[in-house]
Amino acid sequence: MPDNIYLGLVHYPVYDKGGDIVATAITNLDIHDIARMARTYGIRRYFMITPLETQQEMAGRVLRHWTEGTGADYNPLRKEALSRVSVVPDLETAQQAIAADCDGRTATVIATTARLADDAVDYSDLRRRMAEDAGPFLVLFGTGWGMEERFLKKAHYRLKPISGPESYNHLSVRSAAAIIVDRLLGDRQE
Amino acid sequence: MPDNIYLGLVHYPVYDKGGDIVATAITNLDIHDIARMARTYGIRRYFMITPLETQQEMAGRVLRHWTEGTGADYNPLRKEALSRVSVVPDLETAQQAIAADCDGRTATVIATTARLADDAVDYSDLRRRMAEDAGPFLVLFGTGWGMEERFLKKAHYRLKPISGPESYNHLSVRSAAAIIVDRLLGDRQE
Repeated sequence: MPDNIYLGLVHYPVYDKGGDIVATAITNLDIHDIARMARTYGIRRYFMITPLETQQEMAGRVLRHWTEGTGADYNPLRKEALSRVSVVPDLETAQQAIAADCDGRTATVIATTARLADDAVDYSDLRRRMAEDAGPFLVLFGTGWGMEERFLKKAHYRLKPISGPESYNHLSVRSAAAIIVDRLLGDRQE
Repeated sequence: MPDNIYLGLVHYPVYDKGGDIVATAITNLDIHDIARMARTYGIRRYFMITPLETQQEMAGRVLRHWTEGTGADYNPLRKEALSRVSVVPDLETAQQAIAADCDGRTATVIATTARLADDAVDYSDLRRRMAEDAGPFLVLFGTGWGMEERFLKKAHYRLKPISGPESYNHLSVRSAAAIIVDRLLGDRQE
């Protein structure tokens, strides 16, 4: 299992229900659920990506409560997960932070989406490539109705959507992130 | 993939932080996230299990809003997921509902837990057994600090905990449920 994997939750540019490009609000559960999952799978850092300063401040307050404030004493396990979360304005800033953490190397960006695409790779294929690559890797998840198509083009790989036996695939980003990280990094012997 | 799988989210009897046995509160996100995941994987029904009548009523109101109320018009996809959720007082009532749905057959109960146990089965093993069995199956997830040990003994199988590269495994029940259902029912070719 590679040990230099990073996650990013993209709040802009994403689609809203009507197909317009918007910045979504950071939700408390997206911070906590994904941070705990990331910590369980040995993810190095989980970036909350939003250009909105009020949102950056709000998320910063939540993180400080659990990593420095009374929350840190109340629940040290939560502190351990949330101390690996960073709030950044855009993908480029996340990339710079990763490079600073990885001897200047640029992360290979992996986009995830619920929409079908011809050039999407499957999980076992990407897992193999990750095993042969020194990394780092940054796996991006979209909020709202998914990341803008033009933004998705910045990724080196685009993963296939998760699909069940029928056509319904409206997972929350929290569920999708957990499933995707387990498919890429989970112990296949279990 | 078997098509007669049921999920149950157990709110009693579970441990609290101090190890006492309590009934936890139903949370809105546990309803929505797990219902959407269940619908994606073709789960027949998702039972919210709580003996507390005030909690049953609260969950019932949420479900009616999204399946009959204004929420149903606003988001038909959410209606599709939440129409497969039932609130029941205990495991026995869930079993009766499954039997009524499956020509009187009793569900094989699969418990999930973050605690280690000698008799726990691994995912590939249970997946094989499920493929050879006509079902139905009921997969139980615990809230709070996990299901009471004595209650867990009612299950036919106990799955191994999900573990990452280190010892930290404090997933939210929403993340754990998504990962476990994908490991048992997801497309392994992907």
